[in-house]
Amino acid sequence: MTQLPEYLTGNSAAIDEFLDKFDVFLLDCDGVLWSGDHLFEGIVETLELLRSKGKRIVFVTNNSTKSRPDYQKKLTAMGIPSNVEEIFASAYSSAIYISRILKLQAPKNKVFVIGESGIESELRTEGVPFIGGTDPALRRDITPEDFNGLADGSLLDPDVGVVLAGLDFHINYLKLSMGFQYIRRGAKFLATNLDSTLPMNHTFFPGAGSITIPLINMTGQTPVALGKPSQAMMDAIEGKFHLDRARTCMVGDRLNTDIQFGVEGKLGGTLAVLTGVSKKEHWEAKDAVAVPAYYVDKLSDLRGATQ
Amino acid sequence: MTQLPEYLTGNSAAIDEFLDKFDVFLLDCDGVLWSGDHLFEGIVETLELLRSKGKRIVFVTNNSTKSRPDYQKKLTAMGIPSNVEEIFASAYSSAIYISRILKLQAPKNKVFVIGESGIESELRTEGVPFIGGTDPALRRDITPEDFNGLADGSLLDPDVGVVLAGLDFHINYLKLSMGFQYIRRGAKFLATNLDSTLPMNHTFFPGAGSITIPLINMTGQTPVALGKPSQAMMDAIEGKFHLDRARTCMVGDRLNTDIQFGVEGKLGGTLAVLTGVSKKEHWEAKDAVAVPAYYVDKLSDLRGATQ
Repeated sequence: MTQLPEYLTGNSAAIDEFLDKFDVFLLDCDGVLWSGDHLFEGIVETLELLRSKGKRIVFVTNNSTKSRPDYQKKLTAMGIPSNVEEIFASAYSSAIYISRILKLQAPKNKVFVIGESGIESELRTEGVPFIGGTDPALRRDITPEDFNGLADGSLLDPDVGVVLAGLDFHINYLKLSMGFQYIRRGAKFLATNLDSTLPMNHTFFPGAGSITIPLINMTGQTPVALGKPSQAMMDAIEGKFHLDRARTCMVGDRLNTDIQFGVEGKLGGTLAVLTGVSKKEHWEAKDAVAVPAYYVDKLSDLRGATQ
Repeated sequence: MTQLPEYLTGNSAAIDEFLDKFDVFLLDCDGVLWSGDHLFEGIVETLELLRSKGKRIVFVTNNSTKSRPDYQKKLTAMGIPSNVEEIFASAYSSAIYISRILKLQAPKNKVFVIGESGIESELRTEGVPFIGGTDPALRRDITPEDFNGLADGSLLDPDVGVVLAGLDFHINYLKLSMGFQYIRRGAKFLATNLDSTLPMNHTFFPGAGSITIPLINMTGQTPVALGKPSQAMMDAIEGKFHLDRARTCMVGDRLNTDIQFGVEGKLGGTLAVLTGVSKKEHWEAKDAVAVPAYYVDKLSDLRGATQ
């Protein structure tokens, strides 16, 4: 049986001991630092405390619509000081997976993107050629000529070697048909992340996983996912920051993404916060998908450290 | 162990015996009568033979984009004489399921349609109120106002009691978001059919099931499907034609839709043809999803009857 997590809120000695164990904190954002547009109280001071103790902070998000500079703007707008190098988003994770791990040989190294500009920016930064994405030529209804061109291949770029699917607010039948044809013809199938829903405006909207799932359904293939809890993202983080997993702690509000991500990544620790999706009873349940090592009511409870 | 099917091609006595057993033939179309735009040889004569023997013919298709009159036009264009009353398509099946089985009480009896005009025509014929579908107001990008209106409910019609999803060549993020919100708020979730792909132009495109699956993924709910192999469709066919299942034979090319549909519906028989998707080795496999009672190389082999 997995041990239940240690509760740190209000226990200064335990917080001190907890902080001493780690050099790096991987922080999920929504549900940990803020909810929607509302920054939680004491977050800025908590991050200052961690930095003052020499801890490295990495903001880890499955949001694939934003590039790292876009995401930094969001952090700044929320009042959180950050450095673009501290940000690890699934679009970036996908781009470096393609450029540094897949390392496709030209000419068959183009990526067909289903997604928004954040993915395009990161691919561009990594020097990865791509088509699709925000191309206005694909933001339209499918035509009889498209059906013909997709069937005979004349509408397809023979250099596409990867289909990368992420959250696309402009998803349509044409893009799904193209993605499907590329995968059928042998392109590798990647997804920025597989979150079924996107929390927004205090409700939920279709997430990257729900844009990707028609392709999974049609091809019978499961994509390599580059967001939490996929270990492909952990490998990419480790590669970039050269972190010591034993001295790294994943902090998040969701058991099935954040905490699972940290547990499967064999990090030194995982810290759950109760300001987001998961509740105490979720990890106390027999069939809990993952159990954190520690938990606090809210991240700013870490300010209860004595030192 | 299930018995292997009896092979009828070239065996006049067996064909005679087969034909004597049934009064009604439920015929799948694509892969049985034609492939794409190509009508198979001898089909018209075979249907004439069946009719001359007093057999009732029902054309049973999962195609949800066409109403029955639309589909009859297609049969006529292919050179196949038919009557609109002989056609049973999944859009019609859905409409009669809603009007005659669900029987929702006004005012909460509106259907939010994800799909094309065939569904709308059939709902209209059955007197079922609906929104969505081909409404041009929904064929556009989602806006920030939409996110707000979906979150606070102001963009939603409080009278929607059903979400009906089918093949929609104009699927977009807005429609998926609306369908999701209606189901979250308690609307019943139906699908015309769950075919993952649509065979067209000798290749495949996204089918109704691949349009519906984001909603399944987001809600965790499985819709009632009104196409083959769902028995909700069989019940609707039985209700309309008052057929004797023991004297009814399902004819089709796909084990996992047509033959399964007939077997699970406890029909008197099932006949597989080898002019479409499934092959002999599929039902000979240990894990065959369904095994037909009879098979022929092609439907027109039934012309080998002696009588």
